[in-house]
This record gives sequence, C-alpha cells and structure tokens, in this order.
Amino acid sequence: MKKEIPIELANRLINHGPLVLVTSLYRDKANIIPVAWQTPVSISPALVAISVNQNSLSAELIDQGEEFVINVPPVSLLDKVKFCGAYSGREVNKFDQTGLTPLKARMVKPSLIEECIGHIECQLYGRHTVGDHKLFIGGVVAASVDEDKFDGYLRAEMKEAKTLHHLGGSYFLSSGDLVPLT
Amino acid sequence: MKKEIPIELANRLINHGPLVLVTSLYRDKANIIPVAWQTPVSISPALVAISVNQNSLSAELIDQGEEFVINVPPVSLLDKVKFCGAYSGREVNKFDQTGLTPLKARMVKPSLIEECIGHIECQLYGRHTVGDHKLFIGGVVAASVDEDKFDGYLRAEMKEAKTLHHLGGSYFLSSGDLVPLT
Repeated sequence: MKKEIPIELANRLINHGPLVLVTSLYRDKANIIPVAWQTPVSISPALVAISVNQNSLSAELIDQGEEFVINVPPVSLLDKVKFCGAYSGREVNKFDQTGLTPLKARMVKPSLIEECIGHIECQLYGRHTVGDHKLFIGGVVAASVDEDKFDGYLRAEMKEAKTLHHLGGSYFLSSGDLVPLT
Repeated sequence: MKKEIPIELANRLINHGPLVLVTSLYRDKANIIPVAWQTPVSISPALVAISVNQNSLSAELIDQGEEFVINVPPVSLLDKVKFCGAYSGREVNKFDQTGLTPLKARMVKPSLIEECIGHIECQLYGRHTVGDHKLFIGGVVAASVDEDKFDGYLRAEMKEAKTLHHLGGSYFLSSGDLVPLT
C-alpha cells in the first residue's frame, strides 16, 4: 500500500542519490526515462532538480507538459530500467514494452509507476539549459511511498527497499547498510 | 596514491549519489561543508551542480572565490562529516577541528581533502538562487582519485571504497553491492 507523505519530506525519497525513473506526458505521448542525475535543491519551497539530455523525448515532453514524476525503483527493476535507458520513447511505448504499471497521480497528469517504492509529483518551477543537458527544477506538489518502507526516512537499507545507484556505463550498486551499523 | 583522471570521467566519482565534502576558499578563509545535494549535469562540457544553503559561509565563499572542490569521503569519515555539518565555518576552522588534511589542488585554490577517495576541481560556470538554496554549477577542470579505487568506474562496492549516502537527519547508508551480484 502507498501512503501520502508531506511535501516537505519528499526529498527524503531521493536524498541518498538513487537512480530514478522520470515519467512525463504531453497530449497523448507518455514516456519513462532513467535519471541518475537528480537532487533535491530547496527545502522551502520544496524543489527538486533533474538533468536530462536536451535531445531526449522526455526533455521535450517536460518542456511542453510542464510536469513530471520522479519514481524510485527497487533493485528488482534493473532490467526494466536498462530497457528504458536503451530505447527512445520516440520508437517504443515504454509502459507497454516493460509491462510497468501506470498509476494515476494525485496532482499531475504524468503517471506514477506502481512497481516503484516512492513517487514525487512535480510541476515545473524552472528550466535551464546547462551544457548538453536541460536542468528541470520541479516544485513538489505531492509525494507518496510504500507505507512499509518509510518511517519518516526511506528504509533503503531493508532488503525489499534497496535502491539502485548508477556508477556509470552498465554498473549499478544497491543501497547498502546503515552507518554506523545498527 | 592519487591518480589524475580525464575530466570527462569525473562524473563517475559522484554519479551514484554519495554525500560529498565541498571545500571552498576566498582570501584567507577556507571551509568544508557536507553536501548531499549534488549531481553531474552535463557531459560536454563536463559540469556538476551542488545546492548549498544560501546563508551558509560556503555559499558566500563560492560566490566570491568562484571555485570549489567536490571531495568524496569514505564511510570511515562519518564523524568528521557530521562535525562539518554541525558547525559553521564562521565559528570554527573545520580543517583544524577535524584534523582533515588539506592537499594542494592542481587547478584551483581551494584544497582537496587528502583522506577522501576522489576529488573534482571546479571553476564556477553558473549560479542560480533556487528557493532557499543556491545552486552552483561547476565546470570541471581537474579530477583525481585513489588509484586502487577506480578502474574507469568508482569501485564503491569495495569495502575500502564504500561511500556515504544521506537519507536525511542522522541517517546515513553506505554504498552496497554491485547489481546484479558479480
């Protein structure tokens, strides 16, 4: 079961640097893109940033739809994450091809991905072309998480809540143990 | 021993979302601040972003000195990381108080922290006030890493190269294992 969490706690879903799946929508075109380059950027207002290749379909959809959702996948989704990174949404429908389940968001039009641990719904707050990427700043308008994987903090040390961390290329780590060991 | 790595590989020191220690310098004032809110943002040119409380001394020093260094601490430095987060550089000299060792950078004035695994030397490329934080975009001008902890990718799955990942509050994870297990 998912539970809503306060907007000001949304950053705790991504504060430890996981790879995320960003969903976007404009008119009838939906897409999913893996994004390792994400970070919270402000507490009040609650803002998050993602950096996306400026030639990607997702950059286009976010530019036009002015909304996106950050979804935090568990390690078990690695193959689907790789698929979403290997193909362009211009060629394939990634929801159809991966079997990932779109779930209606509470405040924005792009879907959540049901199989993910947590979700941050964003309305576009700012955008900057930065080198060869586009940096989208999202204003958090809703956030939700698997209720058994969040107790004020994401329990990413638990086996079933391990997140993916992209070293680059085809190398991915899982989140590890609490430090100091508890 | 540290080795230089090409600028275009620098993002691989932080791509998996570790907490970093950012060093800055303006005139004779040096500081160290822990930053969980960091991400690469562009490949070519090689750019990285950090989000820093706009009232912090570090924001002031980076604004004025227009340079900073991203240092990647191993988990063994957690106590020193916490100290650097608990005090302002306006009150204490954090190099003196933590015993962390300043090491001359190759291309910028702020010091590297010798005890850290990797280092990204940055010259300021852009800055944006984003909510209650300041987002600094750094142009990478040099990067180096412990030679036994990098083979084209950071070996953050190795015991001696485990990095810190901040869940929020006083909760920190270490980097985990490679996925799939190798």
